[in-house]
Amino acid sequence: MKMAHLVTNCSFSPSPAVKTYSKSPGYCCNVTQFQSSKCSNLVLKSCTATRPKRPFVARASAAVQGQTQTPLTGSQQASGHSSSKPKKIMVIGGDGYCGWATALHLSNKGYEVAIVDNLVRRLFDHQLGLDSLTPIASIQNRIRRWKALTGKTIQLYVGDICDFDFLSEAFKSFEPDSAVHFGEQRSAPYSMIDRSRAVFTQHNNVIGTLNVLFAIKEFSEECHLVKLGTMGEYGTPNIDIEEGFITITHNGRTDTLPYPKQASSFYHLSKVHDSHNIAFTCKAWGIRATDLNQGVVYGVRTDETAMHEELSNRFDYDGVFGTALNRFCVQAAVGHPLTVYGKGGQTRGYLDIRDTVQCVELAIANPAKPGEFRVFNQFTEQFSVNELAKLVTAAGAKLGLEVQTKSVPNPRVEAEEHYYNAKHTKLMELGLEPHLLSDSLLDSLLNFAVQYKDRVDTAQIMPSVSWKKMGAKPKTVSV
Amino acid sequence: MKMAHLVTNCSFSPSPAVKTYSKSPGYCCNVTQFQSSKCSNLVLKSCTATRPKRPFVARASAAVQGQTQTPLTGSQQASGHSSSKPKKIMVIGGDGYCGWATALHLSNKGYEVAIVDNLVRRLFDHQLGLDSLTPIASIQNRIRRWKALTGKTIQLYVGDICDFDFLSEAFKSFEPDSAVHFGEQRSAPYSMIDRSRAVFTQHNNVIGTLNVLFAIKEFSEECHLVKLGTMGEYGTPNIDIEEGFITITHNGRTDTLPYPKQASSFYHLSKVHDSHNIAFTCKAWGIRATDLNQGVVYGVRTDETAMHEELSNRFDYDGVFGTALNRFCVQAAVGHPLTVYGKGGQTRGYLDIRDTVQCVELAIANPAKPGEFRVFNQFTEQFSVNELAKLVTAAGAKLGLEVQTKSVPNPRVEAEEHYYNAKHTKLMELGLEPHLLSDSLLDSLLNFAVQYKDRVDTAQIMPSVSWKKMGAKPKTVSV
Repeated sequence: MKMAHLVTNCSFSPSPAVKTYSKSPGYCCNVTQFQSSKCSNLVLKSCTATRPKRPFVARASAAVQGQTQTPLTGSQQASGHSSSKPKKIMVIGGDGYCGWATALHLSNKGYEVAIVDNLVRRLFDHQLGLDSLTPIASIQNRIRRWKALTGKTIQLYVGDICDFDFLSEAFKSFEPDSAVHFGEQRSAPYSMIDRSRAVFTQHNNVIGTLNVLFAIKEFSEECHLVKLGTMGEYGTPNIDIEEGFITITHNGRTDTLPYPKQASSFYHLSKVHDSHNIAFTCKAWGIRATDLNQGVVYGVRTDETAMHEELSNRFDYDGVFGTALNRFCVQAAVGHPLTVYGKGGQTRGYLDIRDTVQCVELAIANPAKPGEFRVFNQFTEQFSVNELAKLVTAAGAKLGLEVQTKSVPNPRVEAEEHYYNAKHTKLMELGLEPHLLSDSLLDSLLNFAVQYKDRVDTAQIMPSVSWKKMGAKPKTVSV
Repeated sequence: MKMAHLVTNCSFSPSPAVKTYSKSPGYCCNVTQFQSSKCSNLVLKSCTATRPKRPFVARASAAVQGQTQTPLTGSQQASGHSSSKPKKIMVIGGDGYCGWATALHLSNKGYEVAIVDNLVRRLFDHQLGLDSLTPIASIQNRIRRWKALTGKTIQLYVGDICDFDFLSEAFKSFEPDSAVHFGEQRSAPYSMIDRSRAVFTQHNNVIGTLNVLFAIKEFSEECHLVKLGTMGEYGTPNIDIEEGFITITHNGRTDTLPYPKQASSFYHLSKVHDSHNIAFTCKAWGIRATDLNQGVVYGVRTDETAMHEELSNRFDYDGVFGTALNRFCVQAAVGHPLTVYGKGGQTRGYLDIRDTVQCVELAIANPAKPGEFRVFNQFTEQFSVNELAKLVTAAGAKLGLEVQTKSVPNPRVEAEEHYYNAKHTKLMELGLEPHLLSDSLLDSLLNFAVQYKDRVDTAQIMPSVSWKKMGAKPKTVSV
């Protein structure tokens, strides 16, 4: 039986490298200089590239003290009233792209945060020969750096939520008020590589989520589940997409029912399965849950990850894990034509990663009621792929980049010209203040890609996974 | 790596008991008398209890020769034209309640049949301390008896479809034209016993079906998947239930979309997941599939299982695997009050097991087109639980049974009074000729239960699994 491995306060040092850090703890930039020469390059880069606009310690403190500045966020409920204990948030999958940004954001806002992660996302990169555009530190070093910079502790539980013994220990030990669940295999192409990856994706995601539901029922009945779903659950119907439910009048009778689902990869399907499972447990057991049907996320920098390079988030531009807009910006930066799949009329909802962390905080701060299964469509703007290509081309021109676009055969099975109108008002009503793409494209995306362009491996850019050609046999070579 | 274990022509004799049978093969009743004294009781019972109305060998032959008698069934397409090879049907889960009846029926109709089963349903009985009302023979003896009676061979592949190596070998060896997939954990209460059974149910059902889809894509692209779903996928919406899809006009636009799903147990949810996965592979890979959303099945005897007691089907009346009407008949037979859960207004679709086998044959004979995902609602009549109780009470009175009804606390979470109107025309259009409950209740159900009442274990009757109280900890005692 595996047991939860709890890591707090930098006391866990599994590798020699980590031990070195522990023995000579240091602070960067406007705190103090690093003492280890081994780390100085990293630190210097950080000071240049990602210097925060104001001192991070002050910012972190301000967040804790200055709760009245942001009346609609969860900070007040989290920790604002000095007499009350901060809310405890378990971020499952907190080492990943959205999870890491969210964990830092919530910690910064005064929540007590624990990350639960088996770190398998890092293994995928090794196995497929991929790498983040940005160098990312180990989770242990990330957490130590955060502690060093802000004085805030993020607890770490390393293990697999499909292992219920592990998850139970984590729940019993941490006692979360809210569990934010990013801990799933989240790439559609990954799920379409071969049978074993399809099965892994559905098993990992569905069983992992079932275990989270059972852990809540057994150990933390009041715990609010905030589950990351995807707008891809809806597919591209020829009618407006509502937020989770639709009122249907049929043969003279009316009911409000779950919005029909038409997912288009084994990954997207796993999220549909999760949604159905969660809805059932809300009804049967009184679980309180929010399903965040998220659009395509772009950007990498948040206020917290920008504090230090060791806090840098990952930035995927490859054909498997890279989301469309991130990939386009990298392509523009290195002079690679933007690769539009098929006709390019595919339209989806998009959002800045700074809005991802904001939305999760809003969901936590305004929890679902016991027994309520609530669905928010989490995106801020809709674009077709062709529209994105045009925006990147225009932004590139401002930087002196000559950006080409080419159509490549669509590796997916999807409509390339279709109606798309998805509602997304519920998070706005809770106070979401969107970062719009027009404001972020140059600063937060294209300049960033240009800055790191020497790290780009162009072999990773092209689509390598075909929906139609996927087979039952394991693909053992890099894709 | 496990390999498929192919059993044909009685050559596989894994147990001493089976070996005994092999050494002294015998035929029963109007073929020849059994030589083994060990079996004589069984045989005598068979001759008394389930004697077919006409000689079974003649019947089997008639079925092969008399193809023109049933123009709308699949028999013609299967084997009717003497020049063409019979269609090959893989019955996954062919040792179970619906699967065994279907395998025999298809074999009788001239199809070449292979059963794929890991026999785990028998293990569930051992583990939970349950037993079929009817004594059932081992699958090996069932198949031998069928061969002895009819001259027809049913191939047997013993293994787990979640093991893709096993399933691949079965597909490559048998090369099915159609795969009828009953091979799932099919009890809602079983899936609600504890976490491990919930996880088992979803893993077993979802991954097993994924493997079948991959096997079809890889080895038998033309193979028609006939998948057993459940009417329980729809739940009890306040509007009419359509067959798989519903046309919705919303904000001035119209689309035909998958009917919204509201399943009410981890078992029912697993079928919802399957439906979404199958629909996707039809679209992405061109799989041809029919999803049979079956109602609650009642009855046990079909033309084929009635030929000999060793061909008897199982008949479950317990609180875990027993379906409502079967359980009521057993209760009436032994003088146990009919146990109505809650208010008894729960309304569902029902069908006779003789119609289950007919429906599957119709689906096979009229296959879906490549890429088509077709959904049929497979039931013949709707009843509320209270209506069933009244029908059984009235039928019992004709047999001199004084039948009481009592309401017991509902162990499930479900509406006990609700609108219910589900369409079921597609199978009728293909030629289904229903057996109606009013005609079957006395003969096929109540008399049958009375006949076997000495085998009833009343401890199995009451509901033992609570939707709300289910926990994460394994239940290791009988339920």
